[in-house]
Amino acid sequence: MQARNDAVKALVQQALDAVLAGFPGGELRDAMAYAVTGGKRIRAFLVMESARLHGVSDLTALPVAAAVEALHAYSLVHDDLPAMDDDDLRRGQPTVHVKWSEATAILAGDALQSLAFELLTHDKIGDAAARLRLIRAFAKAVGAEGMVWGQALDIAAEVAPEPLDLDAITQLQGGKTGALIRFAATAGPLIADADPAPLDRYAQALGLAFQIADDILDVTGSEDVTGKRVGKDDAAGKATFVSLLGLQGARDRAQALVTDAESALLPYGEAAGNLRELARFVIERDT
Amino acid sequence: MQARNDAVKALVQQALDAVLAGFPGGELRDAMAYAVTGGKRIRAFLVMESARLHGVSDLTALPVAAAVEALHAYSLVHDDLPAMDDDDLRRGQPTVHVKWSEATAILAGDALQSLAFELLTHDKIGDAAARLRLIRAFAKAVGAEGMVWGQALDIAAEVAPEPLDLDAITQLQGGKTGALIRFAATAGPLIADADPAPLDRYAQALGLAFQIADDILDVTGSEDVTGKRVGKDDAAGKATFVSLLGLQGARDRAQALVTDAESALLPYGEAAGNLRELARFVIERDT
Repeated sequence: MQARNDAVKALVQQALDAVLAGFPGGELRDAMAYAVTGGKRIRAFLVMESARLHGVSDLTALPVAAAVEALHAYSLVHDDLPAMDDDDLRRGQPTVHVKWSEATAILAGDALQSLAFELLTHDKIGDAAARLRLIRAFAKAVGAEGMVWGQALDIAAEVAPEPLDLDAITQLQGGKTGALIRFAATAGPLIADADPAPLDRYAQALGLAFQIADDILDVTGSEDVTGKRVGKDDAAGKATFVSLLGLQGARDRAQALVTDAESALLPYGEAAGNLRELARFVIERDT
Repeated sequence: MQARNDAVKALVQQALDAVLAGFPGGELRDAMAYAVTGGKRIRAFLVMESARLHGVSDLTALPVAAAVEALHAYSLVHDDLPAMDDDDLRRGQPTVHVKWSEATAILAGDALQSLAFELLTHDKIGDAAARLRLIRAFAKAVGAEGMVWGQALDIAAEVAPEPLDLDAITQLQGGKTGALIRFAATAGPLIADADPAPLDRYAQALGLAFQIADDILDVTGSEDVTGKRVGKDDAAGKATFVSLLGLQGARDRAQALVTDAESALLPYGEAAGNLRELARFVIERDT
């Protein structure tokens, strides 16, 4: 998995650098480039592996992987804003609004969302119908019934009189982080016009396991290793999977989800080895 | 023109209300609905008339008109934020961040951008190739080489040591307001796969005339009529077409642009009457 992920990282960074180079220079472009640099690229990896499992070449899938990472980068830039989660550190570096300004962070995020959609129109992705399937699924995944909706629930929870229960937090995360992960993991079948159900089930379990692992890291992780502030949820009195299930309960739940994710991959046999490894990685990582 | 514009307004509002009704309820959806209500709908009108001139039915063009207005609404919500233009009044009503919160305004804007792209995938628009042409042109018009770029130049100008000159401000407005107006006016030929050049020339002149008229209204208009704060640019020491050309010079320039816009419509003959009327309206309006 590591070699494949390194290759995906390099390809995606190259694709994003190339498209950004075509934009007018200035603070906006600098901030966009800064925001799309680095990261684990888990979503790009999901796109590329899901494509490979459906006979879709790396060259075809690459603009989709780049789109997903551009979108993810925008969501982080906006989430970090003072009016939102108010984070000053991301991937061990100052966040965009700290390095430049709030206005530049808002605009860089806005333009990264436009860029993500532009990338999905790329000729290399194949016939027009395939691209339209992707764009429609992507718009639904990232908008008012997907990612942004989840983020809005998260913001609302901060001022709610009662902490969220397990159902509510599962629903919230299904939007906030789950929807884009599900899009990424089903990009292959969407391009190939194949059944997305097995990879969708995989991604649903993976996304939730990933979020539970994030909550665990917020309690057990170190800022040096994670590159972001830890202990924030607890300090803010926010309900998390750890506060609701306890540390061991959260670990058990994450493990059960990984088992479910692995079994969803059975129809793909040996070929899905990288995705199986990724499922185990998301709960074993320390960053 | 008035009857046609009233019809377009009703159709677009209906289309936007219908799609928003499909999203989960809550503050996010309420803020989105609030943001897309009202306005002059000039961009939607451009889409519908440009479509009509190319034999494209209202039913086909409507999702495009709705997309353009959703995108425009998002841009206003974000532009009004405290970190940007810091406006508390829009269309005579409190802006979204005043009525709800900054977080909700950021998220509602974000989700309106996603919605705009989703609308452009609508089956009614016609074959997949046409929709992809639209989506690609739209992404370019609204992102880091179009609208957001212009807005970034505008923000940068506020802290620049010297006021902008005429070339710089023309370039800025070509991005900030011009790019989306040009997309709207060329939507018809884009759908019909026809030459967009005449309508693009029309829209370029119209967009600049519109902005000059806005600058004139900021000096001569009243808050009661315009529904937004006036005198802001002058108070901020910002260069405008009025500060650079004088009031009469700005009026002359706007008039010359309207003449150019009208002559760009010559190939369409009598059929372009509504667009000719719109060109005159943008410099004669008091709101």
